[in-house]
Amino acid sequence: MTLCGYNLLWLLKMSTFVLGFGLVLFMFRSVYLHEEFSLHPVLPHPDPVLPRSNPAVQMPKLLPEERLRSLFSYDGIWLFPKNQCHCETKGQGYNFEGAYGQKDLPAVKARRQAEFAHFQRREGLPRPPPLLAPPNLPFGYPVHGVEVMPLHTVPIPGLQFDGPSAPNYKVTLTASLGTLNTLADLPDSVVWGRGQKQLTISTSDRKLLNFILQHVTYTSTVYQHPRVDVVSLTSKSSIAKFPVTIRHPVIPKLYDPGPERKLRDLVTIATKTFLRPHKLMTMLRSVREYYPDLTVIVADDSKEPLKINDSHVEYYSMPFGKGWFAGRNLAISQVTTKYVLWVDDDFLFTNKTKIERLVDVLEKTELDVVGGSVLGNVFQFKLLLEQGENGDCIHRRSGSFQPLDGFPNCVVTSGVVNFFLAHTERLLRVGFDPRLQRVAHSEFFIDGLGSLFVGSCPDVIIGHQAHSREVDLELAALEKTYSKYRANTNAQIQFKLALHYFKNHLQCST
Amino acid sequence: MTLCGYNLLWLLKMSTFVLGFGLVLFMFRSVYLHEEFSLHPVLPHPDPVLPRSNPAVQMPKLLPEERLRSLFSYDGIWLFPKNQCHCETKGQGYNFEGAYGQKDLPAVKARRQAEFAHFQRREGLPRPPPLLAPPNLPFGYPVHGVEVMPLHTVPIPGLQFDGPSAPNYKVTLTASLGTLNTLADLPDSVVWGRGQKQLTISTSDRKLLNFILQHVTYTSTVYQHPRVDVVSLTSKSSIAKFPVTIRHPVIPKLYDPGPERKLRDLVTIATKTFLRPHKLMTMLRSVREYYPDLTVIVADDSKEPLKINDSHVEYYSMPFGKGWFAGRNLAISQVTTKYVLWVDDDFLFTNKTKIERLVDVLEKTELDVVGGSVLGNVFQFKLLLEQGENGDCIHRRSGSFQPLDGFPNCVVTSGVVNFFLAHTERLLRVGFDPRLQRVAHSEFFIDGLGSLFVGSCPDVIIGHQAHSREVDLELAALEKTYSKYRANTNAQIQFKLALHYFKNHLQCST
Repeated sequence: MTLCGYNLLWLLKMSTFVLGFGLVLFMFRSVYLHEEFSLHPVLPHPDPVLPRSNPAVQMPKLLPEERLRSLFSYDGIWLFPKNQCHCETKGQGYNFEGAYGQKDLPAVKARRQAEFAHFQRREGLPRPPPLLAPPNLPFGYPVHGVEVMPLHTVPIPGLQFDGPSAPNYKVTLTASLGTLNTLADLPDSVVWGRGQKQLTISTSDRKLLNFILQHVTYTSTVYQHPRVDVVSLTSKSSIAKFPVTIRHPVIPKLYDPGPERKLRDLVTIATKTFLRPHKLMTMLRSVREYYPDLTVIVADDSKEPLKINDSHVEYYSMPFGKGWFAGRNLAISQVTTKYVLWVDDDFLFTNKTKIERLVDVLEKTELDVVGGSVLGNVFQFKLLLEQGENGDCIHRRSGSFQPLDGFPNCVVTSGVVNFFLAHTERLLRVGFDPRLQRVAHSEFFIDGLGSLFVGSCPDVIIGHQAHSREVDLELAALEKTYSKYRANTNAQIQFKLALHYFKNHLQCST
Repeated sequence: MTLCGYNLLWLLKMSTFVLGFGLVLFMFRSVYLHEEFSLHPVLPHPDPVLPRSNPAVQMPKLLPEERLRSLFSYDGIWLFPKNQCHCETKGQGYNFEGAYGQKDLPAVKARRQAEFAHFQRREGLPRPPPLLAPPNLPFGYPVHGVEVMPLHTVPIPGLQFDGPSAPNYKVTLTASLGTLNTLADLPDSVVWGRGQKQLTISTSDRKLLNFILQHVTYTSTVYQHPRVDVVSLTSKSSIAKFPVTIRHPVIPKLYDPGPERKLRDLVTIATKTFLRPHKLMTMLRSVREYYPDLTVIVADDSKEPLKINDSHVEYYSMPFGKGWFAGRNLAISQVTTKYVLWVDDDFLFTNKTKIERLVDVLEKTELDVVGGSVLGNVFQFKLLLEQGENGDCIHRRSGSFQPLDGFPNCVVTSGVVNFFLAHTERLLRVGFDPRLQRVAHSEFFIDGLGSLFVGSCPDVIIGHQAHSREVDLELAALEKTYSKYRANTNAQIQFKLALHYFKNHLQCST
């Protein structure tokens, strides 16, 4: 097969074309398929070596699939690009499609596909296949890293011609999303097309040609979403192509920790409560034992608003029964510090609940979220994604990926307990989906896939209030109502599976 | 100067090194400076053409600065990379530093620099300078677009050797963040270092060499933030380098518009109110005239919670005077539809307030936010950013960048009025900073720079309630208290300027 072959593999990986066969088969088909599908055709290039007929005849075999599986697997999952993924659900795991009735499914699939297409269009997906450089190009050029802001101009570094000598040299540059120019002060007879999409340099002086090339500029002419322009550099039959990324930098949102760097200027505690004020009050009292002045934000969707006599507690009353994640999302929306600590309303601060330790971890690493443990329970889990045509496959495994650099007691993972410190700005980017009204936890970490970098430090520990029978009749009644709402009914489970299928474009889990 | 010269220009643009001189000067200094600063040194490469002595002597001049300014300016702003940016504030505009007292400034600057460094570290900034390919490399390789998910494996497309014939060929591939392998089934005598960071191929059969190269794979071995690994391909003195991007795709968060695609399943109205229930009620009544069943989310930080008798209104009571952006952020945190429409509590829906039109625009374009007009006032403004060492310069200009494809009456811009429809998921990513308690508007669009793609369609119009003197004494009293809070005091203005300086890492505006 030719060097273009893998383009198809990529197209497939990027889900633009369904091929109902395995890896090896489309590797052989790819030569013949390439012409139709490559978005960046590589130069026709004489290949003295590789026959275009089935290479398997003269060439050594490829490793057998079982070998590939053993080489490229993680936790027993084969993480190698395929055009389709599968979940071998042995009892556990779900096929998310099953959350919908057979009758509704075709319509649901059509809506899901339409929404996914809109999402991809706005994210600039699927990405085009890789841009391949042929050997022995007479040009020097920038392979990677030329970036320009919309409407700005940048010099294109590293352009150079070093081909055979000739009486006259003609080099043409072509862009599609912007215009080209050169800083060199020369007449149109030498440089033609300044400020246009095609710039042509024509001279007999090779030295002059290179001087001009070294001063070529790219100007973005449209204000737009991030895009990659492929600029081509041509002389006779040689064509070099290189990417120019058009992107507006994301503006920072920094928090001032204040001159004394007090903990209260760095961290806000956030919690959500429902029909169990006694638990909430016990938790708040335990906070005050160790952190007298930290701001605590409480979101409550109980029937009656509470009166909390604490100047550092911000209390928000929500419509009755609005739900668990709606409340969590409300609470974090009000934070004005760099970090936010999530705790449940029935947790209990102890002398092992050292928020400072978690702050230290986020300050010194690149983590977005770091969890502790609840009574020693770390609840770490890894999420591994495989991409597929009809939705991705997600695999959940307990444990962690690797130790955290600089913190031997901490690890990198995908999901943790409900006791974690997070960069407020990062947490808000993912948020807690208010559609999840009742029991929900890992749903948040799945929504954070690709956005949140999560760690876990088990030696920072928070307590949990005992599930004691309430003697007070009123409280007992509340607990009863509470548990009615708390129960994870079958309907709620189906709803969550449907959400993974539609919202997250997943097809199954293990 | 050599083809390496511009590396420095990039380093400067990427703010890793302060050089107190203009563009032309460092272009000449760059040859001598290059060795110290290039992170991707280009191969030593004989350049028969360009003397390393001051090229200005033998070479044509560069265009004079005034010419560059005219060529590369937008709205009178010179958008060309410089190591420092300036704001010529003719009366208007601000130097944000001025918001702090001279006494505090040194300490503030130190904190700001520390927070900015943490931000950059987590965002992988500044990016390394461009990777430059020298001419006449004997290799085919992927210039751009090879991407792998953490812990996954991908084939590296397009690898090929086409150098001079030799009795024996030895090609070495080297990665730094992952490992290499090949699918070709061959013994260690030919392929050495499988599954390690360095893979060596040694054979006398050129055909076999290329077969192996075409089946080389890259495996990500660490679960981490997005990174770019630079893989090198070596044979004798030739080295090709190409990027492999390690990135976890961001998981989609799609909304199901439902089988009938009702507007109420697509759009939620959000508003914030404070001490003027009469205005709010008038606005709500006007909504119901045209949209009887759309969900309206109301965030209220008045003294007494209101009772609103409307089953489609969700009412949230906040701590008194919590503030304008805190309320806006609360309201959007509760939305469960794909789109959210922002309106102020004193607006008035009319027969020109066609939400469907705005939905149509967001469905058919790549915009994240589209504004209408308030009584015909469009309030469009463009924000242009220049990057600088000590913070960026921001330039605000009224009007728009360009017409919106497919919608001749709409335009692309950076900021609009307080009447806009937004993709809920995108809006939440930016959010309304709860630190902004009082008058604030353009602050939101500045926070959205690089995240939100904004448009404006003036022919979708909402009304505004008249500023009539309230006859009702109670209401008059409320209005009085309200306007006290509403007033944009000098202290509040200073606070906002300080926020731009610290939070957004800006230095000045025009």
